[in-house]
Amino acid sequence: MQIQDPQYRERTLAAFAHQPWAEHLGMQAGDLGPGWFEIRLPLQAFHQQHDGIVHGGVLATLADTAVALAAYTLAAKGQRIVTIEFKINYLRPAQGELLLCRGTVLRPGRTVTVSEAEIFTVDGSAQTLAAKALATIALLPGPPEGDGVLRV
Amino acid sequence: MQIQDPQYRERTLAAFAHQPWAEHLGMQAGDLGPGWFEIRLPLQAFHQQHDGIVHGGVLATLADTAVALAAYTLAAKGQRIVTIEFKINYLRPAQGELLLCRGTVLRPGRTVTVSEAEIFTVDGSAQTLAAKALATIALLPGPPEGDGVLRV
Amino acid sequence: MQIQDPQYRERTLAAFAHQPWAEHLGMQAGDLGPGWFEIRLPLQAFHQQHDGIVHGGVLATLADTAVALAAYTLAAKGQRIVTIEFKINYLRPAQGELLLCRGTVLRPGRTVTVSEAEIFTVDGSAQTLAAKALATIALLPGPPEGDGVLRV
Amino acid sequence: MQIQDPQYRERTLAAFAHQPWAEHLGMQAGDLGPGWFEIRLPLQAFHQQHDGIVHGGVLATLADTAVALAAYTLAAKGQRIVTIEFKINYLRPAQGELLLCRGTVLRPGRTVTVSEAEIFTVDGSAQTLAAKALATIALLPGPPEGDGVLRV
Repeated sequence: MQIQDPQYRERTLAAFAHQPWAEHLGMQAGDLGPGWFEIRLPLQAFHQQHDGIVHGGVLATLADTAVALAAYTLAAKGQRIVTIEFKINYLRPAQGELLLCRGTVLRPGRTVTVSEAEIFTVDGSAQTLAAKALATIALLPGPPEGDGVLRV
Repeated sequence: MQIQDPQYRERTLAAFAHQPWAEHLGMQAGDLGPGWFEIRLPLQAFHQQHDGIVHGGVLATLADTAVALAAYTLAAKGQRIVTIEFKINYLRPAQGELLLCRGTVLRPGRTVTVSEAEIFTVDGSAQTLAAKALATIALLPGPPEGDGVLRV
Repeated sequence: MQIQDPQYRERTLAAFAHQPWAEHLGMQAGDLGPGWFEIRLPLQAFHQQHDGIVHGGVLATLADTAVALAAYTLAAKGQRIVTIEFKINYLRPAQGELLLCRGTVLRPGRTVTVSEAEIFTVDGSAQTLAAKALATIALLPGPPEGDGVLRV
Repeated sequence: MQIQDPQYRERTLAAFAHQPWAEHLGMQAGDLGPGWFEIRLPLQAFHQQHDGIVHGGVLATLADTAVALAAYTLAAKGQRIVTIEFKINYLRPAQGELLLCRGTVLRPGRTVTVSEAEIFTVDGSAQTLAAKALATIALLPGPPEGDGVLRV
């Protein structure tokens, strides 16, 4: 994967850091590289749904964030990103102490990038695939338009 | 849509109420009926992503919850539900003071139900479609198996 | 829905007519309007899968074509369209003599449009929903680039 | 991946062979194993859409068939399969002389299996990823119910 911005690491980590929702969820940035981005989520009681396993909305948030930031590593300086859509399949119950989500670009584009995400339950050195997502991300010219309205 | 459980309203509202994640997000149950369920979300600062609009993971949580509970209104007493998968398209930025999400069953089944969800930005009497989702939900026999492992 | 090209009907029907695959399948254009397009498919034996009902790939072709042409009715003269992605849920077996597929734009955009499609089994005046799809379509500037490579 | 039927190869190839639609499209069975199935498609003029590249409905048919037959390799003798839903992203234009589609099970289940498919444009020894799909497949008890109505 070809980067366009030598400062992509700092730029991508800064985008992750400035999200109130990411903070409310307790997501932590993991490693990243050209076309991929990892998120760690230490599990807490508030992540659960009614039956004690992690709520699908938590997994969807991880996937949405990871696919978008994987795309963002390949963006040009000043470009913004927005997730157009994604699909997620829940494969196995997510539970335990830690989740790891890795977003990977499948097809980089000038204005549309396709990424996927895999979410793993981590138990020591064992990782079990708990969910998989497939997503479409728009790359928009910046700086942000003042009214916050997306115009893809 | 044909209900199987005359107590479906109480049963569905109880399932909604017992979700730590729903509480952490601030979701409120709206109206419901046979094959549909509404959720209201008064927006708060922590719902936002880095650019000031509502994070896609918040919208995904609303959709995931609404499609599942719409299916749950038609379940038999004792059945459990689990979202197998969903897809969501983000149509317009979600912002303002209130979101409304309505889940609707498209095709009820004995073991697999298909539902959709629409999420609206509410501004007074005006509602603007902000996202749409299409989902597959499994209906499982109950009572819950003790180890929490789904066996669809 | 606001059209940009007064000749949208002729332009959209011409795009439909020039598809070898549509002809191989036996698809027929139905009615159309601003933001929507209908396709009729008289069923034949070759549309079937191994168990006598219509193959999912036939339904997927109807959906893919209808969502894209619904978007195309709103395009500017000279723009091209390409389906970026879609999801389809099969709700009930498609069989009988005639299928009707209606594509509808949910959110028109300058470069990305979101459409949905519904496929009905038609039996006299009765229509039964057999499948539903949700799709993302790119609008590209024309004329077509000479090498046929999409550059979204 | 654990098979349940020692005759899975013959059973799966027989299911592929008895599909009128597969024959109409010109699909050929490739290799298969526990949890995966490959399809080859020598490209012909009728596979094209209006701009000379392969129609999305052709790619969707390949994906739908491959994800289902990958699931079918793991089924018990007498079980039937039906695709509940899938999502496909078109990544790069499919063209040339040959497409290869590989379906792979991500999560085998007793009644619901999740598979993905990758479609490659083949040019000599080079393979380029043209599309990716993520799908949910139901496993139904057999023998087929007489009226062909799916009852998942």
